Amino acid sequence: MKSFPSSLSHVAQFFERLPGIGQKTANRLAFYLLRMPERDLQEIADHLSNLKSRTKKCHICHNLTEEDICSICQDTKRDISLITVVEDVLDILPFETGDIYQGYYHVLHGKIDPLNHIGPEDIYIESLMARIKKNGSGIEEVILATNADMEGEATSMFIRNRLKELKETHQFSFKVTRLGYGLPIGGNVEYADYMTLRKSIENRNAYE
Amino acid sequence: MKSFPSSLSHVAQFFERLPGIGQKTANRLAFYLLRMPERDLQEIADHLSNLKSRTKKCHICHNLTEEDICSICQDTKRDISLITVVEDVLDILPFETGDIYQGYYHVLHGKIDPLNHIGPEDIYIESLMARIKKNGSGIEEVILATNADMEGEATSMFIRNRLKELKETHQFSFKVTRLGYGLPIGGNVEYADYMTLRKSIENRNAYE
Repeated sequence: MKSFPSSLSHVAQFFERLPGIGQKTANRLAFYLLRMPERDLQEIADHLSNLKSRTKKCHICHNLTEEDICSICQDTKRDISLITVVEDVLDILPFETGDIYQGYYHVLHGKIDPLNHIGPEDIYIESLMARIKKNGSGIEEVILATNADMEGEATSMFIRNRLKELKETHQFSFKVTRLGYGLPIGGNVEYADYMTLRKSIENRNAYE
Repeated sequence: MKSFPSSLSHVAQFFERLPGIGQKTANRLAFYLLRMPERDLQEIADHLSNLKSRTKKCHICHNLTEEDICSICQDTKRDISLITVVEDVLDILPFETGDIYQGYYHVLHGKIDPLNHIGPEDIYIESLMARIKKNGSGIEEVILATNADMEGEATSMFIRNRLKELKETHQFSFKVTRLGYGLPIGGNVEYADYMTLRKSIENRNAYE
């Protein structure tokens, strides 16, 4: 991009740093911005420069927020007896799409991953325990919704054991559940990997 | 994204407006930025807000520049007898890759496209004529490098005719050429469309 003005090159280089964007796409995006209204560019520049300073973690569930408590934890119309534990903030999105879930969340911000030196103390497990200890009698169910990979499974198992101890010590009666696994909707048996199919067989339902 | 902070949502919405970026990718990119160093975000915000005001068209070739004359037209080591006419600024990039071209450019910023009401007067054809008229005796070749589609072809034909008139009126002796068309390098005959293959047959070379 040495034949182009430096602000344009900088913008293209910025795009190129983003995951999944190659050099040609980056150039095209930078040129596309040139055709955007000046006001829109100004606005997005403001948001970018404030992005990190304005964004913090919710004191309760660790979802991202610009206040102390996130909009979900502030929502009193939700089911206070239900907490879903997810690995990352982006995992909340599918739950919030299409009115399928009305409870609260707890964001771990990671998963137990010994190979990368991430232990239980590096993610928000203790704060989940503290949160449940405090409100335990009002909680009916904790849904473990970590990913269906090895680290996600290990993380769920670790939390399940900690919750079991907590229930016994404090005489809580909430259920602990894990998301159901199987063929995705629209999924094709022919292309299913055997792990998915095994889960799908284990989780088969009466159908008559 | 209503469950997320507003600056994050705004950044995600910005990405979603860009061509080829869907909602999920936009969300993922916005979260990726959260992990970038604050300083980098600040820097890109500055570039974005100055992008349009700083970027203007070169007085000579209409390439983009932050000064009056672009870096290519300022480069006196290039071959002053050679001008390549391209539709858009991005078309310069492949010419500038890998030392294959040492002449100057003329950027039309569009192509003749009657269906979309773009005529010869809407793109930088007159300024090309003025430029060649002024330096005509020093020019040896004008390469027409518009795209190989219908509008690109029509634009090249229009410019070719105008250049012919100019040569006759002013007794200039430069050549006018058009880029060669054929199978792309690495291209597969089996998958070539018949127009490309026809050009490829017309442009066949002695090979013995």
